[in-house]
Amino acid sequence: MTRYVVGVDFGTLSGRAVVVRVADGVEVGTAVHEYRHGAVERTLPATGEALPPHWALQMPLDWVDVLRNAVPAALASVEGGLDATQVVGIATDFTACTFLPVLADGTPLSDVLPDRPHAYPKLWKHHAAQRQADRINRLAEERGEAWLARYGGKLSAEWQFAKALQVLEEDPEVFARAERFVEAADWIVWQLTGVETRNACTAGYKGAHQDGRYPSRDYFEALHPGFGAFLDKVEGPLAPLGGLAGRLTAEAAAWTGLPEGIAVAVGNVDAHVTAPAAQAVEAGQLVAIMGTSTCHVMSGATLADVPGMCGVVADGIVPGLYGYEAGQSGVGDIFGWFVDTQLEGGLTHEELTARAAQQRPGQHGLVALDWHNGNRSVLVDHHLSGVIVGQTLATRPEDQYRALIEATAYGTRTIVETLEAAGVPVTEFIAAGGLLKNTFLMQVYSDVLRRPISVIDSEQGPALGSAIHAAVAAGEYPDVRAAAAAMGKVKRAVYTPDEAAADVYDRLYAEYRRLHDYFGRSEAQGANEVLHRLRELREEVAR
Amino acid sequence: MTRYVVGVDFGTLSGRAVVVRVADGVEVGTAVHEYRHGAVERTLPATGEALPPHWALQMPLDWVDVLRNAVPAALASVEGGLDATQVVGIATDFTACTFLPVLADGTPLSDVLPDRPHAYPKLWKHHAAQRQADRINRLAEERGEAWLARYGGKLSAEWQFAKALQVLEEDPEVFARAERFVEAADWIVWQLTGVETRNACTAGYKGAHQDGRYPSRDYFEALHPGFGAFLDKVEGPLAPLGGLAGRLTAEAAAWTGLPEGIAVAVGNVDAHVTAPAAQAVEAGQLVAIMGTSTCHVMSGATLADVPGMCGVVADGIVPGLYGYEAGQSGVGDIFGWFVDTQLEGGLTHEELTARAAQQRPGQHGLVALDWHNGNRSVLVDHHLSGVIVGQTLATRPEDQYRALIEATAYGTRTIVETLEAAGVPVTEFIAAGGLLKNTFLMQVYSDVLRRPISVIDSEQGPALGSAIHAAVAAGEYPDVRAAAAAMGKVKRAVYTPDEAAADVYDRLYAEYRRLHDYFGRSEAQGANEVLHRLRELREEVAR
Repeated sequence: MTRYVVGVDFGTLSGRAVVVRVADGVEVGTAVHEYRHGAVERTLPATGEALPPHWALQMPLDWVDVLRNAVPAALASVEGGLDATQVVGIATDFTACTFLPVLADGTPLSDVLPDRPHAYPKLWKHHAAQRQADRINRLAEERGEAWLARYGGKLSAEWQFAKALQVLEEDPEVFARAERFVEAADWIVWQLTGVETRNACTAGYKGAHQDGRYPSRDYFEALHPGFGAFLDKVEGPLAPLGGLAGRLTAEAAAWTGLPEGIAVAVGNVDAHVTAPAAQAVEAGQLVAIMGTSTCHVMSGATLADVPGMCGVVADGIVPGLYGYEAGQSGVGDIFGWFVDTQLEGGLTHEELTARAAQQRPGQHGLVALDWHNGNRSVLVDHHLSGVIVGQTLATRPEDQYRALIEATAYGTRTIVETLEAAGVPVTEFIAAGGLLKNTFLMQVYSDVLRRPISVIDSEQGPALGSAIHAAVAAGEYPDVRAAAAAMGKVKRAVYTPDEAAADVYDRLYAEYRRLHDYFGRSEAQGANEVLHRLRELREEVAR
Repeated sequence: MTRYVVGVDFGTLSGRAVVVRVADGVEVGTAVHEYRHGAVERTLPATGEALPPHWALQMPLDWVDVLRNAVPAALASVEGGLDATQVVGIATDFTACTFLPVLADGTPLSDVLPDRPHAYPKLWKHHAAQRQADRINRLAEERGEAWLARYGGKLSAEWQFAKALQVLEEDPEVFARAERFVEAADWIVWQLTGVETRNACTAGYKGAHQDGRYPSRDYFEALHPGFGAFLDKVEGPLAPLGGLAGRLTAEAAAWTGLPEGIAVAVGNVDAHVTAPAAQAVEAGQLVAIMGTSTCHVMSGATLADVPGMCGVVADGIVPGLYGYEAGQSGVGDIFGWFVDTQLEGGLTHEELTARAAQQRPGQHGLVALDWHNGNRSVLVDHHLSGVIVGQTLATRPEDQYRALIEATAYGTRTIVETLEAAGVPVTEFIAAGGLLKNTFLMQVYSDVLRRPISVIDSEQGPALGSAIHAAVAAGEYPDVRAAAAAMGKVKRAVYTPDEAAADVYDRLYAEYRRLHDYFGRSEAQGANEVLHRLRELREEVAR
């Protein structure tokens, strides 16, 4: 009997299930289910109450609906049909940090207190806890908390502590009623297995779990009296990625149409799970998931202090290695802004790309800084903004479009060089994500990086990555490494650098780095903090 | 008998005549005549020969056609009719430096050698003599030529020496056959009077005539053997502005329909002649002629070394005072580029202005440098280019449009402050030109300058200014000052600064000045010459 596994990828607006053959990773069926409520950013559905600015929630039942709908549909989509008994395991990946308060049995607190916004899961892009994050970072710095350096010196407002602290401070009753706080990545596995597990990846990247422990109770109490209780609500053993979380319950079997009792893998994160899907399981193989923003994940053999990382976590991507994560907070979003907002849709991405591709590097005379949505790595500063220099009366939209593409490539090169300078070699650059379809852009990246670029050979990298973890959890492979070798898909060196272009880009990249430091560092370092001052002024006059 | 004068303004593409009442400056008639050949930039009309890049020529007969057509039409346009015998004088103003080789009797060399491009008048925007200009400046600097400081340390490639040297080097026969070189401003007066005169304004601003003399023959010979002969081709007494150049010839009377023998004033320049039209004849009254570019003209009581001026010339604007000229090489052109080229016409100036006007200063979070067409004052560097900082994913086109308007206002403030810092007080700011119609922009200028702005009260400032000079030449007034008081038109303090806006702009202007120096000065001064390197790279890869 040919055996299959199911991977389910929970995104921001929908979930996707894929059915994958265990032996060789062939994707035989797939289906998508859109969340009924999408991202809840304006009003609370239960009451119609308006949410404050920068809030983003989700509805747990929408996630369960993916299990009920996308999984059976993916099974039904298999050509020639598939007997569900051939499926031996299931695994999931999720956006993170998407974080919710629950009862001890996993019931979402929003089921109990449906009229309380803080009882709902806070989606990763909930940005209303910046004040809390600022205090979290200031206090950690004052106390010299050792874990802070593992996160580029700053925990994000998107992460667990800021979100939970906001609950405590703004709705202490919800905080008190929450018996557990859990990542959605683990909550969905709880629904599949009936048992609570916690994965090492989100605990490390989003919960600052380092060297076997969370920050101290002292630290939490110093943030806010009573916040020490948070530790009790998240404590528990951490399970390795690819581990067996439990067995599919009868109820979940009924939702999904899968056999009761099959293996369910430990929860995981969409970006990180993409690495094995691209066979990137060895130290030095960097996977860039390039979309509206870009996430870089790579395992390294050693623990190094790399400036500006989102995090470094032991076993964070592949068990046995240190997982490094970096990011660019605006990539496709910047191109989208330029087309939709600046040009008001007068030209399409395709037209601009076609025109830009006619040029030689350096011909437009521009250099841009890709900070329109802030800088995640290596400056870790979300208050930065974009810069473009070199415009003349002859500058055309395609010139600026190309300059923006190049700026994001320079941003990627900055991350790669920072890793290497810190003693973490990058041996292969593998691209995944929606921007792969722009072959001109990919060639620019290869030229700017002066490296070959390998490309994931699946259009559903995260779901395939989950399926690989399902196969490991089901015992079909001894570990993620072996499963990735058999089931992952990558085309090596699809793009190779043009030496002449790379020579020009070396010069432009030097200009980028100089402007990067001038606009991105502090006055004390000889830089110009004009971007901060402009942002402060913007907020001041808006009051 | 009510007496009238005629002013004729020769622009880049057309000439405009206006009939003005001597007593009070009321404009009673006007007419425009477009040049048949416009600016000749692609092919030589006589032969169809293609011109090299950056060339710009004109046809002398097109200018005469303005006398033949626009002047009679302006007379005919007077409501209720006008007896031509009531006209007592005529004066003209011209673009400059527009410069032509002629025979000793004023015959354009292009009439003699019609198949030789170098025999034609070179229009002000002929930009093919940059190599010559570079050598002119380098040699003057090496030799420590004292006059160089009067021009911000650099003569422009648009000016007389570069244009004439290009003739000598590229077509020595044309140079040899030229018995005189003459500004179009003086040539047109020659046509009206039959006698050669030379005005002090163009000789000073475009011919580096300072302290009673041109640069030395040694200097010209060192530039190119034989170039000393240029001095013989331009030497001659200089006539004061408003002086009587001669009397209208019978031939010119036939062209224009004006009485033979009336006064013809000494030639003048379009920007400079606008000052008396706006009653700006006292030291410290600065007139900004704001259009595609902006020209600033102001008289000062003393001779000061002001960095980055286009020139300072004794009697250059009003006899008896030192005339200072500065400029911004891109103003309306930058807004036009943004609308036509960046937005491809998707939004109009009016729409963008209406949206931008809704904002408070500082709200868009942007600062731009207005160097898309280089910087004329105070950096005197045409190889600079534009910069914009502070863009986010929320930045909209009207934000950038407003930032560009503000940038040009900061550029103006830089010029005003540079004059004052050098000991040349600016007591009144008077605006003229096409941008007057944008009242939002004018208010921004008032807020940024923290000064009231007076406004010329004529839509044909240069032609009115010429008419004022005609009245002086005809003896109707003792001098330009008196004529301007009676005939000039200005509305005082039409715009006054909003203090709250001005406070915000003080902060933004400080950012502008810091970026101005960072991108505009030399590496030796601690700046970043990235704009120069980008331009060099652009030219390098285009080869």
